[in-house]
Amino acid sequence: MKLPISKQAIGEIMAQMDISKISDTTIRQSVALTGKLEQLSGAEFVRLEIGVPGIKACQIGVDAQKQALDNGIASIYPAISGLPALKESASRFIKAFINQDIGPECIVPTVGSMQAGFNLMMECSQLTPGKDTILYINPGFAPHTLQAKVMGVKRAMFDIYHFRGEKLRAKLEEYMEQGNIAAIVFSNPNNPSWVCLTEEELRIIGECCTKYDVVALEDLAYMCMDFRNDKSKPFEPPYQPTVSRYTDNYVMMISGSKIFSYAGERIAVVAFSPKLFNREYPHLRETYGLGRMGDNFILTFLYVASSGTSHSAQHALAAMMQAAVDGRYNFVEELKEYQRRAIRSKEIFEKHGFTIVYSMDNDENIGDGFYYTIGYKDLDNETLINYFMRCGISAISLSTTGSEQAGIRACVSRLNREQDMVNLDERLALFVKLYDSEKQ
Amino acid sequence: MKLPISKQAIGEIMAQMDISKISDTTIRQSVALTGKLEQLSGAEFVRLEIGVPGIKACQIGVDAQKQALDNGIASIYPAISGLPALKESASRFIKAFINQDIGPECIVPTVGSMQAGFNLMMECSQLTPGKDTILYINPGFAPHTLQAKVMGVKRAMFDIYHFRGEKLRAKLEEYMEQGNIAAIVFSNPNNPSWVCLTEEELRIIGECCTKYDVVALEDLAYMCMDFRNDKSKPFEPPYQPTVSRYTDNYVMMISGSKIFSYAGERIAVVAFSPKLFNREYPHLRETYGLGRMGDNFILTFLYVASSGTSHSAQHALAAMMQAAVDGRYNFVEELKEYQRRAIRSKEIFEKHGFTIVYSMDNDENIGDGFYYTIGYKDLDNETLINYFMRCGISAISLSTTGSEQAGIRACVSRLNREQDMVNLDERLALFVKLYDSEKQ
Repeated sequence: MKLPISKQAIGEIMAQMDISKISDTTIRQSVALTGKLEQLSGAEFVRLEIGVPGIKACQIGVDAQKQALDNGIASIYPAISGLPALKESASRFIKAFINQDIGPECIVPTVGSMQAGFNLMMECSQLTPGKDTILYINPGFAPHTLQAKVMGVKRAMFDIYHFRGEKLRAKLEEYMEQGNIAAIVFSNPNNPSWVCLTEEELRIIGECCTKYDVVALEDLAYMCMDFRNDKSKPFEPPYQPTVSRYTDNYVMMISGSKIFSYAGERIAVVAFSPKLFNREYPHLRETYGLGRMGDNFILTFLYVASSGTSHSAQHALAAMMQAAVDGRYNFVEELKEYQRRAIRSKEIFEKHGFTIVYSMDNDENIGDGFYYTIGYKDLDNETLINYFMRCGISAISLSTTGSEQAGIRACVSRLNREQDMVNLDERLALFVKLYDSEKQ
Repeated sequence: MKLPISKQAIGEIMAQMDISKISDTTIRQSVALTGKLEQLSGAEFVRLEIGVPGIKACQIGVDAQKQALDNGIASIYPAISGLPALKESASRFIKAFINQDIGPECIVPTVGSMQAGFNLMMECSQLTPGKDTILYINPGFAPHTLQAKVMGVKRAMFDIYHFRGEKLRAKLEEYMEQGNIAAIVFSNPNNPSWVCLTEEELRIIGECCTKYDVVALEDLAYMCMDFRNDKSKPFEPPYQPTVSRYTDNYVMMISGSKIFSYAGERIAVVAFSPKLFNREYPHLRETYGLGRMGDNFILTFLYVASSGTSHSAQHALAAMMQAAVDGRYNFVEELKEYQRRAIRSKEIFEKHGFTIVYSMDNDENIGDGFYYTIGYKDLDNETLINYFMRCGISAISLSTTGSEQAGIRACVSRLNREQDMVNLDERLALFVKLYDSEKQ
């Protein structure tokens, strides 16, 4: 069979896989479906659905990790509070690229930012009776909302599309003034839309968090990857924008997965606002015998989550951060490859009549990075994804990210060969032809 | 200052550390307190409080992990269902040393058995409305009960001391017949008492789990370490006793931390009963859109917990299990070092008038392994631990393990030098002298 795949064939495979709506599939289901459709059609798909590093792991990390293994750390439990060398170099890394002063004692490694998010949401929901809901700025990372669901914590969320700039304040207050919001979760740059919150927007979030005593959980998985200005020089502006400049109620999550292409080893750090880390919560003390947020994060939540994080991966991240701080490894420069792929592939989409859905950061065009969002005329998500799959392009629907807009998320990480760009061009031409021939 | 430390000095340090009862301290607090008391006294403590591997990591794992890093896996997300090579070798390992047939598809890696326990308890508590309570056979691993507390799941527990053999059935039924028990948690050999459940007792647990539809969560962290008979030969009896012979409602947790001294890398596997793995739970399907227990464990619970487990550590565990299966690495023989230390140190305790608290497995003397329990005359936990700390011996109270007996848990892993045995002998002599002089 060649492309396009028939409506009937795709329907049969979805039924086999217990998928009723193609626009509801999670990333993992989408990967599985793509595999089956590649088998069926014999065509290699253009893979836009999953955000994996498309660059080799930073060798400095690999070398340090191997050295640590040779030094015998495999038998030794890592301290749950973290390897001192990692805490130190993360503190310097945050100073160098975010320009914030956070002492090593307030920085804790986690098994990826996924573990950080899970346990931060869990702890935040237990800080103060009545503050039992996590607020999400959408579109966002679908597992973040699933985390709250899994642990039985209430959720609230809104699509930022219509609430950029000063409009954000009223929207946040609409939720926060009810008094039940424990924490607000957002990523910056944003997965999936690559929206980069402006300093003004971060200030608004920070001010609201202070006013309503809400914890800002800031996911910096893609930090310094807004390439519109060069954030590659340690200890020199411009720095990564962050809510931490505008409130003491923050925790930053910094993953090694994308910035050092180290996703396989599941390593990240969380950096607490020093005030929050040391803040005493009577409800925590009553429940666990420990009152401070930082102590409980380490000794209660992370302890029972996994008893700490891979000892050797902590050595890797410590070395990579140190190298970045010292200017020996320019991680931003390495990642600009994603910018190049975004520019190329967006051009191809636009040539075939597609538009960027989340196209502006207020009055500035959106940057080119790891993800972007794509829509076609007035096609709804289900129809668009279905056409894409039939034409050999896999992607996830924006509806799975909490977005209320029609479109898909495209991730450029797998567009790593010139042939992928050629294929994309051909498949989109096929899509246009197919769509035109089938539309009523 | 020399030993013994005065009552007043220890009281002051406890107050500084916000510890009101020394017998309530967790392992981590006990480690911290010991550090402070070592500083104060200038004496190196005999460390019986923490269970860390006291043997070097299995080199086969270290080599495989380094090789995997050289092969570039650091940048590649591990499949959440696990590395195929690990699933395969764990399946063979389970056949070789437990004599159970569990296909690779039912075996999933986790970030230590800690992550396994957390997510299994969480999932079990969500399988069936009304089954909302985890039952623990105590004494047990304190974090297991903390896990349920952290996630807001109800707990029930009893001390097995008076309920060995056939008496166990009535005790289990007392809880299970109420219909609210989702899962039962136990370790075998047991941490902290080194009680090894007999085949009869495992059969009773299994029969009750089937009768009342309860999931048995069997922690095999110390598998094959009941050295009373030699379980070191792959594919030859005797095998590790297991509840999995007596019910289809089981999940086994097998950690690399102790059996391969690989604690630093946080790597374990869970092995589901094939029937349970594939069992459809309507409540899961309603909640998550996926019905089967195994699918949800992987795609829902582990996904949001940490997006999988260190890619390189999975290669390490795969290689170590394979070597054990092939007879190239005799992990049981390596671990017999703990038996030697247990025999030596128990002799020293007994010489000074101490007794083993959990001393029998029904009609058989308890084995010598990683842990044992120690009591002295009619001293209560608080008094005994306080004396021990004053005399330069750190240990945790049995009360923190859910035991209702008076005594302490001793872990032999840190008694790795002849000097430690000499120190233990001297400190116990000091204890006896101090106790005799102070008692009324």
